[in-house]
Amino acid sequence: MADPRFFQVTGPFSVGRLAEIAGAPAAPGSDLDRAIEDVAPLEAAGPAHVSFLDNRLYAAAFAATRAGACVVKPELAARAPAGMALLLTEDPYRAYARIAQVFHPVAPPEPGVAAAAMVDPTARLGEGCRVEPGAVIGARAEIGRRATIGANAVIGPGVVIGEDSVIGPGATLSHSLVGSRVIVHPGVRIGQDGFGFAMGPGGHLKVPQLGRVIVEDDVEIGANTTIDRGAGPDTVIGAGTKIDNLVQIGHNVQVGRACILVAQVGISGSVRLGDFVAVGGQAGFTGHLKIGAGARIAAQSGIMRDVEPGATIAGSPGVPIREWLRQAATLRRLTRRQAD
Amino acid sequence: MADPRFFQVTGPFSVGRLAEIAGAPAAPGSDLDRAIEDVAPLEAAGPAHVSFLDNRLYAAAFAATRAGACVVKPELAARAPAGMALLLTEDPYRAYARIAQVFHPVAPPEPGVAAAAMVDPTARLGEGCRVEPGAVIGARAEIGRRATIGANAVIGPGVVIGEDSVIGPGATLSHSLVGSRVIVHPGVRIGQDGFGFAMGPGGHLKVPQLGRVIVEDDVEIGANTTIDRGAGPDTVIGAGTKIDNLVQIGHNVQVGRACILVAQVGISGSVRLGDFVAVGGQAGFTGHLKIGAGARIAAQSGIMRDVEPGATIAGSPGVPIREWLRQAATLRRLTRRQAD
Amino acid sequence: MADPRFFQVTGPFSVGRLAEIAGAPAAPGSDLDRAIEDVAPLEAAGPAHVSFLDNRLYAAAFAATRAGACVVKPELAARAPAGMALLLTEDPYRAYARIAQVFHPVAPPEPGVAAAAMVDPTARLGEGCRVEPGAVIGARAEIGRRATIGANAVIGPGVVIGEDSVIGPGATLSHSLVGSRVIVHPGVRIGQDGFGFAMGPGGHLKVPQLGRVIVEDDVEIGANTTIDRGAGPDTVIGAGTKIDNLVQIGHNVQVGRACILVAQVGISGSVRLGDFVAVGGQAGFTGHLKIGAGARIAAQSGIMRDVEPGATIAGSPGVPIREWLRQAATLRRLTRRQAD
Repeated sequence: MADPRFFQVTGPFSVGRLAEIAGAPAAPGSDLDRAIEDVAPLEAAGPAHVSFLDNRLYAAAFAATRAGACVVKPELAARAPAGMALLLTEDPYRAYARIAQVFHPVAPPEPGVAAAAMVDPTARLGEGCRVEPGAVIGARAEIGRRATIGANAVIGPGVVIGEDSVIGPGATLSHSLVGSRVIVHPGVRIGQDGFGFAMGPGGHLKVPQLGRVIVEDDVEIGANTTIDRGAGPDTVIGAGTKIDNLVQIGHNVQVGRACILVAQVGISGSVRLGDFVAVGGQAGFTGHLKIGAGARIAAQSGIMRDVEPGATIAGSPGVPIREWLRQAATLRRLTRRQAD
Repeated sequence: MADPRFFQVTGPFSVGRLAEIAGAPAAPGSDLDRAIEDVAPLEAAGPAHVSFLDNRLYAAAFAATRAGACVVKPELAARAPAGMALLLTEDPYRAYARIAQVFHPVAPPEPGVAAAAMVDPTARLGEGCRVEPGAVIGARAEIGRRATIGANAVIGPGVVIGEDSVIGPGATLSHSLVGSRVIVHPGVRIGQDGFGFAMGPGGHLKVPQLGRVIVEDDVEIGANTTIDRGAGPDTVIGAGTKIDNLVQIGHNVQVGRACILVAQVGISGSVRLGDFVAVGGQAGFTGHLKIGAGARIAAQSGIMRDVEPGATIAGSPGVPIREWLRQAATLRRLTRRQAD
Repeated sequence: MADPRFFQVTGPFSVGRLAEIAGAPAAPGSDLDRAIEDVAPLEAAGPAHVSFLDNRLYAAAFAATRAGACVVKPELAARAPAGMALLLTEDPYRAYARIAQVFHPVAPPEPGVAAAAMVDPTARLGEGCRVEPGAVIGARAEIGRRATIGANAVIGPGVVIGEDSVIGPGATLSHSLVGSRVIVHPGVRIGQDGFGFAMGPGGHLKVPQLGRVIVEDDVEIGANTTIDRGAGPDTVIGAGTKIDNLVQIGHNVQVGRACILVAQVGISGSVRLGDFVAVGGQAGFTGHLKIGAGARIAAQSGIMRDVEPGATIAGSPGVPIREWLRQAATLRRLTRRQAD
C-alpha cells in the first residue's frame, strides 16, 4: 500500500504470523492463513492489507473498511465488517507498529563515502558507515559503525556520532557527543552557542559557552529543532527521549530518559526534566525549573514554577489541570451572567 | 527605488498604463502621461515613483509623501498632496501588487546545472531547469521544466518537483510530490518522518511513517517550516495555500485550498483544514480536528475542538471570538472591582 | 575544565590578575597568587578553577563547591567554603563573562578558501577571511576581512558581510547587508521574501518583496531564526541586538539597538521596537505596532496594541504586568469560591 516510489515492502505474511509478531492473538474465526501484503490506513486498505483502529473517531471508517485484517481492541471486535481477520490487543497502536516494522524494516545504509563529501583526513569513519554527497566532516570527528551522515550535513571538529545513528540532510552538529541509534532529522542544529549574555545598559557582553551537548542512545530529534550547548555544564538529552520538530532547548537543560517533547516546545536554560516527562506542543518553560518524573504538561502551557513528579499542568501561567479546567468554567459562567 | 544591487526594474510606465495594469482608474486631473519608474514606500518615494495607501495608520505618511502617483481608496483621495496622480480602487494592496509585478517581473531562471551540483544519473531534469551549486538530487527524482533547485538544497530519491517551481537554498525534500509554480523558501523540511511512537513505560516504539507529502500547485512555504510525511495516509497541502515561516505541519494533516497559515503555527497530526481557512501566528491545533471551510483562527489560539465553517475563534482554549472578547472584559471588570 | 576535545584554554592566571580582569576586587584574605587554570561550574569545579554564583537557587552548590575561587556578590561572601578566594561584585555574571573570555578568547579564523567552496568569480573576499567547505558565495557578494563563511552556508548575489562576522554552517542569506562582528548561527535564514499577499476569494496574489535586510554591527542571531526582507522599506536589526533561536521576524520590522529577543518570539510585519526592548520566549506581536524603548514583554505574551516606553506587559492579550497578576489572582479566587 505504501508508494513503491518511496518505500520497499517485504512479506507477504500470514495472519497467524502477524498475530505472533504483534503479540495480539487472532479472534476466533479469523482466517490464520490469509496472506497479507502490507499495512494500510482503514480508508485505503484492501483485502490483502492489515490496518488498525486506535481512536474511536475512526469507528465509522472501521465499519466500512475493506481491509483483510485489522488490529483492534477486543471491545470493538463486534463492529468489524464480516470476514475480516481480527488481531486483538489492548494497545493496537503498539501492535500495529510491530507489524509495520516487519513489513518495512529499516535497511542498513548502503555504505560508502560519496565522492562529493568533504571529510577531514583526521576524522575517523566506522566500518559500514555512509557519508552522502556534500556532507562535511571536521577534524578529529568520529563516526560510528553503520552511521549515516546525510547530504549537506555538517559535523564539526571533534564531534562523536555513535553506531547506527542517522544524521539527516542539512543538519549541523558541533561540540557534541551523540549516542547510538540516534535519529537526527533534517535541519537540526546541535551544539551552537547558548544564549548567554551579561546584559546591561552599556551593551550585552557575550558569555563564552564552554559546555557540550550529550545526546544519549535511542533519542530522536525532529526537523529544524535547536539544542544549544551548555554554558559550563553540559546540555543533556536522556536515552530514549523523542523530540518533535522546531523545539528549542536552551543551554544546560537536562532532559531525562524517555521524555516526549511535542513540536514547538521551548525550554529555557538550566531546566531539568525528570524521566518520562511529556510536554504538549508550544508549551514553554522559564529558566532553572525542576520538572518531576512523569509530569505531564499540556500544550501551550507556560510553566514558571517547579512541577511535582506525576503532576498534570495546564495554562499560562501553568496550574494543575483540574484547576485550569475550573478556571475556564468559572470565566465562562461569569461572562454568561454578565451578558444576561 | 528598489536597491539595484538586488533588484532589476523594467519600465518606465505611464500613469495611464499603470491604471490599466492595476484595474484602478485614475482620478480626474491625474497626469496620465507622467512617467513612473518604480514602486516605492510612501516615506521614500519621489516624483517618479508610485506608492500605495492600504492602512489608515499611514495616513500621515500619505499626506506628506513626495510620490508622483499613489494607489488609494476613493474616500481618501481628498487627503492627497497636490499634484499627485491617484489610482482609485477599493483594494489598493491588490492593485499595488499588480503594479509591482509589472515593474519587477519574476525572471525565468538562468538554466543549467552547476558543475558543483550532485545529480544522480537516474534523476530526470526538465528542459530549462536550473540546479545551483551544492544541490544534491537523488536517484529517480524528477525536476520539472524551468524549475530551480537552490544552492545546497537536497532532493531525495524519487521526489517529483513540478514546472516553474523554486526550491530555496538549503531546503530538503524527501517522500514528496510537489506541484507546479510552488515556492519553497530556504531551510524548509518536507517529507521527513512524522512524530509517531507507540508510547509506553518500556520505551517508545517507532511507528514506520509510510505516507507521502503532496504539495499542490501554487503553494508557497516559508523559511524553516517543517511538513512531515503521512504515517499511512498522505500529508496534503492544497492548491494556492500560503504558509509562512517556522510553521509545523504534522503527519496526515490535510490543508485545503487557498489557506493562510501565519508564522509559527503548529498543526498536530491528522487535522483537516477546509478551503480558505486563515490561521494567525503561533496558533496551535490538537490532533484529529476538523476545521470548516472559511474558518478564521486568531493568533495564539489553542484549538482543541472541531470548528464550524466560517467561524472565528480566539483564545486558548479557543472559543468564538465574541465570547473571548466578553471573557476578557469580564475578567478586567471583576479584577477592577476587587482592587477597589 | 572545558572539554579539550572542543575548547582551547589559555592561562593560568593568578587570582589577583583575574580580579583586575573582572573589575571585581578580591575579598580580604583571598590568596592573590593562587594559579587558576580555567573556569568551571560550581558543581564541577576544583581548586584550580574559578566559578561564579549569580542566582540564589544555587546557594547550596556554592556552599559545597571545591572551586579555588569564585565571583560572588559581597552579601553572599560569608557563605563561602573556607579557603576559597572571592572576587566581589554586584554583577557576578558580567565579571564571570570577562574572566571566561580571557581564558577562552575568540581565535581569529584560520584564513583561506576551502577547495570545495564555490565562490563566484565576481565576489570579493576580504583579507584573512575564511570560507569553509561547501559554502556557496554568489555574484558580486562582498565578504569582509577576517569574516568566516561556515560549511554549506549560502551567501546570495550582492550580499555584503562585514569584518569579523561569522556566518554559521548551513545558514542562507540573500538581499541583505550585514555589519561587522555579527554572529549568525547555523540554519539562520535572512533576506527571503516576506509573507506578502493580496488575499482574496479568487486566490492570493503575491506582492513582490522589494526591500532588504539590514543587520547592524554586533548583532547575534540564533540558530534557525528567520528574518524576512522588507516589502518596500527595509527590515532592520539594530546594533548590539541579540536574537535567540527559532525567532520569526517579518518584513519591514525595525528592531532597535541592544534589544533581547528570546527563543521562538514572533514579530509580525512592520512592527517597530525601540532600543533596549526585551521580549520573553514565545511572545508574539500583531503587525504595525510601536513598542517603546526599554519596554519589557513577558514570555508567551500576545501584544496587540502599542506599548509605552519602559512598560512591562504580560498576558495574551497583553496588559500591564500588575494587571495581569491581579487578573490571575481574581480568577483563582473566584474559582475557589465557586468550588466551595
